[in-house]
Amino acid sequence: MANSPTTPSGVFAAALTPLTAELAPDIARLADHCRWLLDQGCDGLAVLGTTGEANSFSVDERLDILEGLAEAGIPGHVLMPGTGCCAVPDTVSLTRRAVELGASGVLVLPPFYYKNVSDDGLFAAYSEVIERVGDDRLKVYLYHFPQMSATPISYALIERLLDRYPAAVAGMKDSSGDLGNMAGAARAFPGFAIFSGSDELFLPLLQAGGAGCITAVSNVASGLAAKVYAGWKKDGEIEADNGLLVAVRQAIVRYPLAAALKEIMARLTGDGDWRRVRPPLAPMEEGDAAALMGALDDADYSPPPPP
Amino acid sequence: MANSPTTPSGVFAAALTPLTAELAPDIARLADHCRWLLDQGCDGLAVLGTTGEANSFSVDERLDILEGLAEAGIPGHVLMPGTGCCAVPDTVSLTRRAVELGASGVLVLPPFYYKNVSDDGLFAAYSEVIERVGDDRLKVYLYHFPQMSATPISYALIERLLDRYPAAVAGMKDSSGDLGNMAGAARAFPGFAIFSGSDELFLPLLQAGGAGCITAVSNVASGLAAKVYAGWKKDGEIEADNGLLVAVRQAIVRYPLAAALKEIMARLTGDGDWRRVRPPLAPMEEGDAAALMGALDDADYSPPPPP
Repeated sequence: MANSPTTPSGVFAAALTPLTAELAPDIARLADHCRWLLDQGCDGLAVLGTTGEANSFSVDERLDILEGLAEAGIPGHVLMPGTGCCAVPDTVSLTRRAVELGASGVLVLPPFYYKNVSDDGLFAAYSEVIERVGDDRLKVYLYHFPQMSATPISYALIERLLDRYPAAVAGMKDSSGDLGNMAGAARAFPGFAIFSGSDELFLPLLQAGGAGCITAVSNVASGLAAKVYAGWKKDGEIEADNGLLVAVRQAIVRYPLAAALKEIMARLTGDGDWRRVRPPLAPMEEGDAAALMGALDDADYSPPPPP
Repeated sequence: MANSPTTPSGVFAAALTPLTAELAPDIARLADHCRWLLDQGCDGLAVLGTTGEANSFSVDERLDILEGLAEAGIPGHVLMPGTGCCAVPDTVSLTRRAVELGASGVLVLPPFYYKNVSDDGLFAAYSEVIERVGDDRLKVYLYHFPQMSATPISYALIERLLDRYPAAVAGMKDSSGDLGNMAGAARAFPGFAIFSGSDELFLPLLQAGGAGCITAVSNVASGLAAKVYAGWKKDGEIEADNGLLVAVRQAIVRYPLAAALKEIMARLTGDGDWRRVRPPLAPMEEGDAAALMGALDDADYSPPPPP
């Protein structure tokens, strides 16, 4: 079960979803953003994640986004779309379509409405998804994000799922911020690919046997993260780059992430439309936005200009 | 804005959703359950709430349930369906159909995936729903359930919504378990109908100016709750009934509610199919089930036999 050359690894951006004036997904602009991220050095794109406001879109809107990216020529193999919903049938619909479109993996939140559910219940939910999709190409990445989903993915659950579905259960995105949990999972489950949800744990997780990162901050700092990844693979000098990446993250994560990153994109592109978020998220307030830009300046970080 | 005779009040059951062997909603059986609850004295039915596992069903499945209940002859005016989803377009679809089917109100969870969202964001989300539905018959009941949704409804938000949409914003279900919050809202917003999500706060909330209760336990104890409500309205002796209602609740709420109530229904009806829940919920384990039934026995409670 060692990582094959086609197993996703490295830097994945949890891509933002640009919106139209009606707050519908602006798929053409999303495709442009995806291309820019790939140009910056992203290894893959986790579209429709938390940062992409996936849970603010209906299943049909999400399917339209997946279809639209395929039509725009974004290759399926760079995609790891978020497909986990509260309701298993919705997760099945999205997962099935993502697999058909050639996604190299799907990032699957556990059903997140009920609290304190049992591992039996979560095992049954993931099992239903895997069996109903019933496609050998399916590669599920579990999404451990207790602060947002309030539904942790335990090692016991991973073990049961790997035992039952060794081919379909491929890895985990861990957004807990707990390096011990990530590194422990990498040790406990060889070949099970662990991605850090945080930029500052990206390098430590690589050093502990992890596969990469899937982060919000990569929307505006993927070139930097790609340098860290390339340098780490070649055993190069990466302390300065990594220090800057961590500083950039620290400047941004003090604010609600999607709004803060859209603020930065608005300033990078000179296009205020980037600021749109769908309720219940709200755009950044002006004072916060100024403080954020000041903090990026203090860190001496200038993101590359978009095309 | 005083309550008119047609304003929902009294005892609402957060109706369970029976499932088929394929874990699809068993709408015929749900209609039977609804009729039984009305026969027991329920004033209304909050179908598709938390206890009804609404968030485990796709929007299409939920629309089918609403249509199916109408076809089965359950009158719209007794219904207060849950329609709040993570994605505003889904909330709009469900709310619109519920209003068209004559529902006396809709119970609307705030978008519950993102945490620590602002009142601005929640105001925008509820505004979008009210304006997109755009129907004078719409009566929104806000759903304050911080333990499950992790998205509290503040007084400041209620005030802004009432100020902007005085006709559409009708009340709140408060499942916080905090009588002070409920009673305070009843005092602060005259005519805004507050329903307790807990049976033990039903009577205290009525005494504090509230409108009634919407509870899970009413699935198996609505006759008792109806006696408390009728007795309270006539200034009668209700201490014994209320004491029993509270004891029944306390016996049940130690367990995951939907599974525990379905266990009781399975035993009441002699039909084990009632035990089915959709993942991530799981049926009660046998030891817990025995302890639950023992606790109901200890409380000296025998629910009425279903038809």
